[in-house]
Amino acid sequence: MKIRMAMIGGGAGSFIGPVHRMAATLDGECELVAAALSSDPDNAISSGIRAGLPGDRIYTDWQAMIDAEKLKPVEIRPHFISIVTPNFLHYQQISESLNAGFHVLCDKPLCMTVSEAKELKNLVEASGRLFCLTHNYTGYPMIKLARDIVRRDRLGQVHKVSVEYFQGWLSTNAEGEGNKQAAWRSDPSKAGNTGTMADIGTHAFNLAEYVSCLKVKEVCADITPTLFNRRLDDDGNVMLRFENGVKGSLLASQIATGEENNLRLKVYGEKGSLTWEQMNPNDLIVRSTGEPIRVYRTAAFTGDDAERNTRYTRLPAGHPEGFIEGFANVYRSFTRAIRAVSDNLPPESDYPGIEEGVRGMRFLEAVVNSSAADSKWTLL
Amino acid sequence: MKIRMAMIGGGAGSFIGPVHRMAATLDGECELVAAALSSDPDNAISSGIRAGLPGDRIYTDWQAMIDAEKLKPVEIRPHFISIVTPNFLHYQQISESLNAGFHVLCDKPLCMTVSEAKELKNLVEASGRLFCLTHNYTGYPMIKLARDIVRRDRLGQVHKVSVEYFQGWLSTNAEGEGNKQAAWRSDPSKAGNTGTMADIGTHAFNLAEYVSCLKVKEVCADITPTLFNRRLDDDGNVMLRFENGVKGSLLASQIATGEENNLRLKVYGEKGSLTWEQMNPNDLIVRSTGEPIRVYRTAAFTGDDAERNTRYTRLPAGHPEGFIEGFANVYRSFTRAIRAVSDNLPPESDYPGIEEGVRGMRFLEAVVNSSAADSKWTLL
Amino acid sequence: MKIRMAMIGGGAGSFIGPVHRMAATLDGECELVAAALSSDPDNAISSGIRAGLPGDRIYTDWQAMIDAEKLKPVEIRPHFISIVTPNFLHYQQISESLNAGFHVLCDKPLCMTVSEAKELKNLVEASGRLFCLTHNYTGYPMIKLARDIVRRDRLGQVHKVSVEYFQGWLSTNAEGEGNKQAAWRSDPSKAGNTGTMADIGTHAFNLAEYVSCLKVKEVCADITPTLFNRRLDDDGNVMLRFENGVKGSLLASQIATGEENNLRLKVYGEKGSLTWEQMNPNDLIVRSTGEPIRVYRTAAFTGDDAERNTRYTRLPAGHPEGFIEGFANVYRSFTRAIRAVSDNLPPESDYPGIEEGVRGMRFLEAVVNSSAADSKWTLL
Amino acid sequence: MKIRMAMIGGGAGSFIGPVHRMAATLDGECELVAAALSSDPDNAISSGIRAGLPGDRIYTDWQAMIDAEKLKPVEIRPHFISIVTPNFLHYQQISESLNAGFHVLCDKPLCMTVSEAKELKNLVEASGRLFCLTHNYTGYPMIKLARDIVRRDRLGQVHKVSVEYFQGWLSTNAEGEGNKQAAWRSDPSKAGNTGTMADIGTHAFNLAEYVSCLKVKEVCADITPTLFNRRLDDDGNVMLRFENGVKGSLLASQIATGEENNLRLKVYGEKGSLTWEQMNPNDLIVRSTGEPIRVYRTAAFTGDDAERNTRYTRLPAGHPEGFIEGFANVYRSFTRAIRAVSDNLPPESDYPGIEEGVRGMRFLEAVVNSSAADSKWTLL
Repeated sequence: MKIRMAMIGGGAGSFIGPVHRMAATLDGECELVAAALSSDPDNAISSGIRAGLPGDRIYTDWQAMIDAEKLKPVEIRPHFISIVTPNFLHYQQISESLNAGFHVLCDKPLCMTVSEAKELKNLVEASGRLFCLTHNYTGYPMIKLARDIVRRDRLGQVHKVSVEYFQGWLSTNAEGEGNKQAAWRSDPSKAGNTGTMADIGTHAFNLAEYVSCLKVKEVCADITPTLFNRRLDDDGNVMLRFENGVKGSLLASQIATGEENNLRLKVYGEKGSLTWEQMNPNDLIVRSTGEPIRVYRTAAFTGDDAERNTRYTRLPAGHPEGFIEGFANVYRSFTRAIRAVSDNLPPESDYPGIEEGVRGMRFLEAVVNSSAADSKWTLL
Repeated sequence: MKIRMAMIGGGAGSFIGPVHRMAATLDGECELVAAALSSDPDNAISSGIRAGLPGDRIYTDWQAMIDAEKLKPVEIRPHFISIVTPNFLHYQQISESLNAGFHVLCDKPLCMTVSEAKELKNLVEASGRLFCLTHNYTGYPMIKLARDIVRRDRLGQVHKVSVEYFQGWLSTNAEGEGNKQAAWRSDPSKAGNTGTMADIGTHAFNLAEYVSCLKVKEVCADITPTLFNRRLDDDGNVMLRFENGVKGSLLASQIATGEENNLRLKVYGEKGSLTWEQMNPNDLIVRSTGEPIRVYRTAAFTGDDAERNTRYTRLPAGHPEGFIEGFANVYRSFTRAIRAVSDNLPPESDYPGIEEGVRGMRFLEAVVNSSAADSKWTLL
Repeated sequence: MKIRMAMIGGGAGSFIGPVHRMAATLDGECELVAAALSSDPDNAISSGIRAGLPGDRIYTDWQAMIDAEKLKPVEIRPHFISIVTPNFLHYQQISESLNAGFHVLCDKPLCMTVSEAKELKNLVEASGRLFCLTHNYTGYPMIKLARDIVRRDRLGQVHKVSVEYFQGWLSTNAEGEGNKQAAWRSDPSKAGNTGTMADIGTHAFNLAEYVSCLKVKEVCADITPTLFNRRLDDDGNVMLRFENGVKGSLLASQIATGEENNLRLKVYGEKGSLTWEQMNPNDLIVRSTGEPIRVYRTAAFTGDDAERNTRYTRLPAGHPEGFIEGFANVYRSFTRAIRAVSDNLPPESDYPGIEEGVRGMRFLEAVVNSSAADSKWTLL
Repeated sequence: MKIRMAMIGGGAGSFIGPVHRMAATLDGECELVAAALSSDPDNAISSGIRAGLPGDRIYTDWQAMIDAEKLKPVEIRPHFISIVTPNFLHYQQISESLNAGFHVLCDKPLCMTVSEAKELKNLVEASGRLFCLTHNYTGYPMIKLARDIVRRDRLGQVHKVSVEYFQGWLSTNAEGEGNKQAAWRSDPSKAGNTGTMADIGTHAFNLAEYVSCLKVKEVCADITPTLFNRRLDDDGNVMLRFENGVKGSLLASQIATGEENNLRLKVYGEKGSLTWEQMNPNDLIVRSTGEPIRVYRTAAFTGDDAERNTRYTRLPAGHPEGFIEGFANVYRSFTRAIRAVSDNLPPESDYPGIEEGVRGMRFLEAVVNSSAADSKWTLL
């Protein structure tokens, strides 16, 4: 039996919608059974057809879909709703989905404000339903290994964390040229009160906390709407203070001309350090003083770290696995947890959840406040 | 409507079976509807269930599957058979599939001998059915671009071609330790009269001809069963002479300890050269004398070469696409051609076919004969 | 005729002394004629002998050397004094050298405080002598090209500058284990009121201004003495605001375990960006939206940018030039300027000078003050 | 006391002459005292002046220099002659230098024929003088380490050796455009009966034997004068059989358009393999099945392999050392051996010598004969 998914958003013109569908179905363990893929009815219908859905489960209104699908017989009813809409819709769509009894998966960031986030957290906890936030970079096998290396104390105590996420696609006036992605992301009513920080800064923040196993306590930020009279930041620098006195930095930009999707994490510890770059995701570089550099490669090693070879990879070493495969790992962990719940087994929470969503919103709020206060150190 | 696929081989224990299934279904344009996934009945059944097939379309015998499926109503009957068995079974399975009226896709190499290959070519041509041989590396977007660059004469006349394909997995006694892949590949009755050359040398050969747009005329080969008293070569060096007096080399090894799946192609022309490495598949490096190196990146460029951005990629630049995505491009081209045929439209042959299969077998025969004759230059 | 150099500091146990001597003499245009290589008389003498100096021009006291050498006949008298001592000695040694009529080259940072720096600037200007500060990274051919690319407006208006300089050698207690370099660098009386920022942060700062052709106006800094109860910072993050509203960041660390000498500069403009990494100094990576990445290589290109091929390189492309060669470019520019002055020709100032020294001290003062004021934005 | 060098060849217009002078003098242990830098008297004189030589030790005729310099008082007489002329002059210049009692260093290849090489070997042995052939790539620290790794059996038994050396500078008609380097290298009367193989193939051959610690027994070659009606090969492929049944390949080209100086060596053993690339000379990559890749870096490691950190490097890790530094290691080893001989101590032979010269000539003769015999396997 496959886990059944309904989807809100992600029709023609969406980048992330098709990614979610490929990721969800890659392993043959999950299928799309219903969808409201667009708020535009024509798009919703044509995209639904193209996704292979039967006409009676293609919806032009997400609320109508939830109302109808919750009444379906249990053997065809969706197990979960996948939400891939702009930020401002998340709060209501998550709430309604949970209220209708569905598990929920939602693209990041969680919502628009910390107070919304707290409410959603309460709602998730009260519902007994599972919730996944697609910080998909945590799904890469080398990121799983990186976190393990820190947890097993192989770097010793962490001293320093440096993360940067550089893109260049907003160095042109994309929103002025009809790019839908750019349009809503630069509109405060749809994106919230940050642009680049919400879009990619939260990924960087999440990854830094996930791998370092440390929480950020304070930020000192300088975010800027650099170009084209933007209303939201398209670039920002943030200095970080973690717990235990650890310091770090988070740099994020979407005006870094010529950069594609350059997310890089470095964690420095007492005995060693690790470096990972999203554009070469199958390498994890570990350096220790006085020793040769060690490059761990997806699916290539045995021994202590080998569990990662089988759980999060699909191919032998040297057959590159990329963005879709990493994203699929998050989906697979989540759908397997749903399966466990359906089978009355304890689910393994091997995916980002509501707590990561709340932390992301706290981070964004602190960054916005710090920057507005001329880069005053601000607690999360 | 999705294109319907039946599969022979590829059950539990197979590496390439799951790859074919992920590649076939990635874009939601093709579905698996029937399968005989193993010659072992238990494996065939359990693997079929795991693949989500209904019980009545899971077969324990491939011939029985063909016999039954050809009688299905046209609206559920498979459009094509995907064959992912060891080499010695290809000839019969392709023949029977064509005879039953199915289009056929088969993993490489085509068969066991040149004479089998010629017969299959005649059979394909007589059948009017489509045939695809999964030289999957031709599906990478940067390989498509590389071939275009040569065809558009951007390198000038080609002078030299160098290809190498290094793996290390047979540096240990894999076949002696129960590795199924290694076992049949080192057994002449199942693999044919070459090992490494058939397994990966043919990929390298195909890629060299595909990108350079030149045919190999002669080979001078030295192939060797190096380790563990193997009966078939696990390593080989081949010097090449192409048409137009162009020279080159093809190096292939599976005892290159520590190498993962290191396929590298270099084509040198009058005005420039190109380098592509499978393990960094999203880079195509173009060098010209006196100019900066140009690195083309999947989905990252516009202008003359931009068609490649949309046809063979699924993600924005910087979101790594890998082996499965490249493989899926071959499947998508093939299933779209089937769809065209079904719609009585002229299919575009944007995938490797029977002619590539024949050439691969000619290459293998020439290599074996050259090597047996103390590296005498031997015509293809 | 070779340009004659006398040296203060740089005897046995020094890292940078031998580098200066190799760099000065690499091209056969400069020779060491006198030296006071150590404040320890035995070291001064044995190091002087090892450097091939005649006994009567080996000194155990730098002041004595200046006094004696200024009286030598003009045809053997040193043209310039090279100062490679710890920071706290620079002010006096530069002053005395200038007063004695010598041109002066000094290792960075210039001195201990901004007020010392200003006095030195006045002194240099009054003296009519040439002064060079060895921000040696500006000597790499690809850095010269990078600056030209910005100056020729090939990136369009600059939007963003990101520089980082990571080393790991202070992740161990080097100063506690007898490492002389670490000992004086972590002693405020010898290094000044910063450690890592003075040692490597100034290089990063200088490089950022040199290549971007922009001045930093304000800094917001968080510098930290992280390990081993150090009295001076061994790590720091700095947010930058340049003129024209350009923003940036400067990250510097010597506790970045496993890092060697990882200095990386990125400059982002309207139309393109450039990336340079000191550990691969012969690559300059230029990215523009919609175009292939261009990698300029030392000595490998012709056309508009080709002047750089001949002025700052010594070898054909592909023959790696490294740290010593880059350092030698600074020396060669300086000694050629001295030669021009000696020949009553106008010297070309193609090397960092006193103004760069003053700016470095302003940067350090602002960083220290900002960090002490809980990361308040502070003007340079 | 510095070791004194006289030089034959290497005046204005020479690439390798300045390299030899920089390499010889980098460490301050060797000085140029006399030279006949060109067969053109004007060039000889002006180049000698530019090299800082006194007029009475600048010669316009190499034989005259030997005759005059051998009569100089022992305290100023050169210890050795450095020969950097085209191949056809080596035999006579080496012979005369030895006969005059000098130690000799000569650029590769040794001479024109195997019979010349054997005579030179006898002459060297009879003379009691030291002889060095500048296969400079053996001087890189990571090559020293690579050889040690093989010798200490850390790869287990070697199975396979792959070396390639690709340049592109002869993809244009360099000799027709007045390039002196290209002119003599493509003239059989000056270069011998091979072009590219003599110029760079011998480096590749030497490196393969040096690192693998195995001798080549047989070659099967296809060398080609590809472009511009050349009389000598500008491209070639060679299959190798080493002792112990080990196989390999050597590819060399100077028409590989866009390649700079791309020399790459791979040695595969039972337990691991190593890869080294001249254009990233400070990395040595070691791969073993089931383990992370290990990247050894110049000057960066401690432990068993650490001796290499101090003997062959001049800088801390991360400060790139390049071609000149590697070349200087060969000179330093040779001049230290001369110093030992002068001090009546046993010299350490840590540099390539006459035996390497003989093997290089055997390799060239076998390659030429094999290729002429339609790629017949030919013994060295």
